[in-house]
Amino acid sequence: MRAITLARAVAGVLSALACNAGNSSPPPDQVARFTPDGRLMRPQGWETWVLAGASTGLSYAAPRTPAAAGAAPGMFHNVYLQPWAYRYTIEHGAFPEGAMFVLSFYEPSRKSNPARSGFYEGDQISGVEVHLKKAGVDPTGWGFYAFGDDTTHAAARIPGAVACYSCHKTEAAFDHAFVQFYPALRPRLLAKADSLLRSAP
Amino acid sequence: MRAITLARAVAGVLSALACNAGNSSPPPDQVARFTPDGRLMRPQGWETWVLAGASTGLSYAAPRTPAAAGAAPGMFHNVYLQPWAYRYTIEHGAFPEGAMFVLSFYEPSRKSNPARSGFYEGDQISGVEVHLKKAGVDPTGWGFYAFGDDTTHAAARIPGAVACYSCHKTEAAFDHAFVQFYPALRPRLLAKADSLLRSAP
Repeated sequence: MRAITLARAVAGVLSALACNAGNSSPPPDQVARFTPDGRLMRPQGWETWVLAGASTGLSYAAPRTPAAAGAAPGMFHNVYLQPWAYRYTIEHGAFPEGAMFVLSFYEPSRKSNPARSGFYEGDQISGVEVHLKKAGVDPTGWGFYAFGDDTTHAAARIPGAVACYSCHKTEAAFDHAFVQFYPALRPRLLAKADSLLRSAP
Repeated sequence: MRAITLARAVAGVLSALACNAGNSSPPPDQVARFTPDGRLMRPQGWETWVLAGASTGLSYAAPRTPAAAGAAPGMFHNVYLQPWAYRYTIEHGAFPEGAMFVLSFYEPSRKSNPARSGFYEGDQISGVEVHLKKAGVDPTGWGFYAFGDDTTHAAARIPGAVACYSCHKTEAAFDHAFVQFYPALRPRLLAKADSLLRSAP
């Protein structure tokens, strides 16, 4: 009887520890992985991560010609963050080391019943882009990586001289991330509604 | 020593059971809950669920006037599904009992730096709508619920005579759900790319 009682007590503690560890450690498939030569392996399963925000036709360049009436709004862009990194960010008000944003793209589509107006996310464009918070990869503390058609591809970091780094440094609303566009993060990290943010010049 | 060994063995089994149960049973905060009088309690934490798809200005009605050039594309609509229900759906090719879609709305915004064109998800509109798969609530096997400004509100089911039921019955591509609009579900449930789906008349 004492053995059973002890077994139960220890089991309870270990079970609780094991599950808590499962909750606080990032799941292996939500962690950035690298090849031996330092290239980032393409993240998998990001479509189940937390959506930071969606947008259509977002571009850093002014359009060359005004949009035609009724024209498609440009590609959908979805930005995802690992669930564990999202929980950490909401709890601590900062991105954890290893936070990884994944940007995916979809054709704007409007042909399926029963929609009579508007656009939804059509076929996914095969490539994804990644923004990874990782000390040492760049003076900004973040690295950019781009993945194309090949789903087995590992990507070298985009060099720090490319404009994404300087633009994210000067224009991002919070720690090099465009939190101003992300409804799932804006209230916690900027403590402001979108309607109270400054306007583009 | 025997007691310790037994304790370890039992602990290992129980720990594994506890964590497996945590993986296969829906987390309590991802399950539909009802008041004693049968109203659905407003779901919480849905912004961390799996995004089925996003859309802009999607409407079942043709626009009364053509969109002006450069006009905002209409509100963003995001549709989320519980992670456990998403995993079940991908594994089994069917929605589980208790699957719950949450539809949220965002103002289209374009004013924040550094975007020069396009629209992102601005302020969230306070209400959400829910589509719950629950045997017995309606002959379709699904119930609709609408929540407004009051975040403590519980919602009675929208009556079955309302058009959402008949429209979802005849127009939804898979089991009363508009899977045709959802890139995270289309490949599994329709086995077709959006570009191969029939066009609206």
